[in-house]
Amino acid sequence: MRSVSIIGIGLTKFGEHWETGFRELIVEAAAKAVADAGIEGKEIQALYGGVMASGRLMGQEHIGALLADQLGMNPLASTRVEAACASGGVAVRSGYLAVASGMYDVVAVGGGEKMTEVSTEDVATALGGAGDQEWELFNGATFPALYALMARRHMREYGTTEEQMAAVAVKNHSNGALNPLAQYQREITVEDVMKSGYVASPLKLLDCSPITDGAASVILCATEKLKEHAPKAEAVEIIASTQASDTLALAQRASMSEVASTKVAVNEAYVRAGVGPKDIDVAEVHDCFTIAEIMAIEGLGFFPKGKGGKASEDGETALNSTISINTSGGLKAAGHPIGATGIKQVSEIVLQLRGQAGKRQVNDAKVGLTQNVGGSGATSVIHILRRRK
Amino acid sequence: MRSVSIIGIGLTKFGEHWETGFRELIVEAAAKAVADAGIEGKEIQALYGGVMASGRLMGQEHIGALLADQLGMNPLASTRVEAACASGGVAVRSGYLAVASGMYDVVAVGGGEKMTEVSTEDVATALGGAGDQEWELFNGATFPALYALMARRHMREYGTTEEQMAAVAVKNHSNGALNPLAQYQREITVEDVMKSGYVASPLKLLDCSPITDGAASVILCATEKLKEHAPKAEAVEIIASTQASDTLALAQRASMSEVASTKVAVNEAYVRAGVGPKDIDVAEVHDCFTIAEIMAIEGLGFFPKGKGGKASEDGETALNSTISINTSGGLKAAGHPIGATGIKQVSEIVLQLRGQAGKRQVNDAKVGLTQNVGGSGATSVIHILRRRK
Repeated sequence: MRSVSIIGIGLTKFGEHWETGFRELIVEAAAKAVADAGIEGKEIQALYGGVMASGRLMGQEHIGALLADQLGMNPLASTRVEAACASGGVAVRSGYLAVASGMYDVVAVGGGEKMTEVSTEDVATALGGAGDQEWELFNGATFPALYALMARRHMREYGTTEEQMAAVAVKNHSNGALNPLAQYQREITVEDVMKSGYVASPLKLLDCSPITDGAASVILCATEKLKEHAPKAEAVEIIASTQASDTLALAQRASMSEVASTKVAVNEAYVRAGVGPKDIDVAEVHDCFTIAEIMAIEGLGFFPKGKGGKASEDGETALNSTISINTSGGLKAAGHPIGATGIKQVSEIVLQLRGQAGKRQVNDAKVGLTQNVGGSGATSVIHILRRRK
Repeated sequence: MRSVSIIGIGLTKFGEHWETGFRELIVEAAAKAVADAGIEGKEIQALYGGVMASGRLMGQEHIGALLADQLGMNPLASTRVEAACASGGVAVRSGYLAVASGMYDVVAVGGGEKMTEVSTEDVATALGGAGDQEWELFNGATFPALYALMARRHMREYGTTEEQMAAVAVKNHSNGALNPLAQYQREITVEDVMKSGYVASPLKLLDCSPITDGAASVILCATEKLKEHAPKAEAVEIIASTQASDTLALAQRASMSEVASTKVAVNEAYVRAGVGPKDIDVAEVHDCFTIAEIMAIEGLGFFPKGKGGKASEDGETALNSTISINTSGGLKAAGHPIGATGIKQVSEIVLQLRGQAGKRQVNDAKVGLTQNVGGSGATSVIHILRRRK
């Protein structure tokens, strides 16, 4: 397999885009990524798109073709992948494999979702498709409810507290306040979180990531072709791209207080990359709910099992602390436009490794990791990126 | 890139499965493919699934995770791809790239759709997602209407007749009558087609492929690993796997009487495979409507542009004639369970190249081709397969 590098990134503002449609958001992100890479559009040889619920939210499937069409990239091969909230991560990995295979030298990956212009009920139903329709959603489970079950179990087994979960939200809002593209650029306090209403006990409104519009894009290039296509780009190498699955329904898992697919995927990633958790300077993890970040930093090996809550409360995951987690603001504060999220995570790590993260820059970041989760953990995708100089 | 071969195929009966759900159909197809390959399930290293409209038809996204779960394959990486009616073909191609890359040696590809238990209106709306929602479906176009426009243009430009289109249906039903897994195993006459009611003039009911339940699966293996994993399998080599796109909306194309993406993809495939149209002994093409088969056999270079209708009427595409087209019965008679179709096409070619196609066997078939189309041509996927001995 050939080495693959990221030569360009592009993001829209995440938030509520009342004047802009899905098609315009995707084009904006891709155009920014192409400009960032310093390539010409004609150097791109294939497209991969990550979108979750366009069928239900917009009546539009066939998003691969839509991307090529809207970007003026016909007749390039353009493929949509879908893995619920991990659609973006899987899109990056699909582009990675296409370049690693030798089929293509330069590939554009894009993803996004337009979620705020349909009813909350329609969004909840669409997002429910990430879980087990027959065993969970049909019987009334919602995603906050599924993660609430995991939170309760984590509290029971490890003594994790609601205040510790709140600390995750506070830290991610603190980072989001430094990110000009984040949906929420304001700080909050533990008291704010504790006073917000329960969505599904013990998870409160400010434990939950929001509904968001937005798009993200990255340009991938075979590392051996960097001089040809992107001589001036500050390329970042993908040193591992892995993916694992678990049962769709939460009830069928061996444990409800961890995401087993993340452990499988990251262990493979560490072996492939030749690094361990101590080598990771910065990570973007899938904090769709605050408990998810606590389970993530344990499953990724950054903290021992059961200690993630305390580590969060003690500030060990804050910017330039023990390990900088979710410098972008995470899903919680930067927003969660489903198909864009996994790509935004990778983009944030690229910015950090380039030293271009502005006020939220991690000092001398050399190696970064992303963890993108689908559903309640039925899919996990891990990418490890390394600075090239 | 490594060479990739197909070592196993598995199909359910195509038709109306009132007693069987999507989950059971997928498991049946995959189990048959594993048995056909003579491998153990644990040799499989990753899964790819092609499903189009599960979100709208079943409220279920995250089909990659569902596949791994239902097949007992956790924690393998499992990825859903979607390209409307070309979802199956794109799934095969995604598996192909994953093996070609060196990431995996053995990959299972599956696809299917469960379409008959929702209302016809819901199916039509779901299928509409294959076209341009904003420019076509929103304004009232249906898929029969889009293909009717193409048929009218072909008739005007080349003098193609309704009787010539009917001849396609008659031939495909004749082949379907020899396929024990086909939805319709009965012959029809040109008169039957001409007497059937108009769906969208000039297309009549018997010019249209049906609504179908079904699933299909193939097992892919790196050719260099065949001795290790599948010493007894009668492997068939994939000598080209290509894909191209066109505008989502029909109205924006340079021509409405051809599928330009098919021409782009097949021309690349012929170069990669080192063969030409005259080398193809048998082909499965995307006859969602009879006019689509006529445009396909022209676009693939089997007959000159404008001569596809006459060739069909003259019997040049019949079993063991000039070139055997849609020996399975095609989408028209074998059925069109969207996500399964592209995989079923590949499976049929494997059977033909192995000499296992029974009463519909093409004499001494050495090289076969599949053409799988998404929407009205916004995606085309081509596979060329070759017998290994």
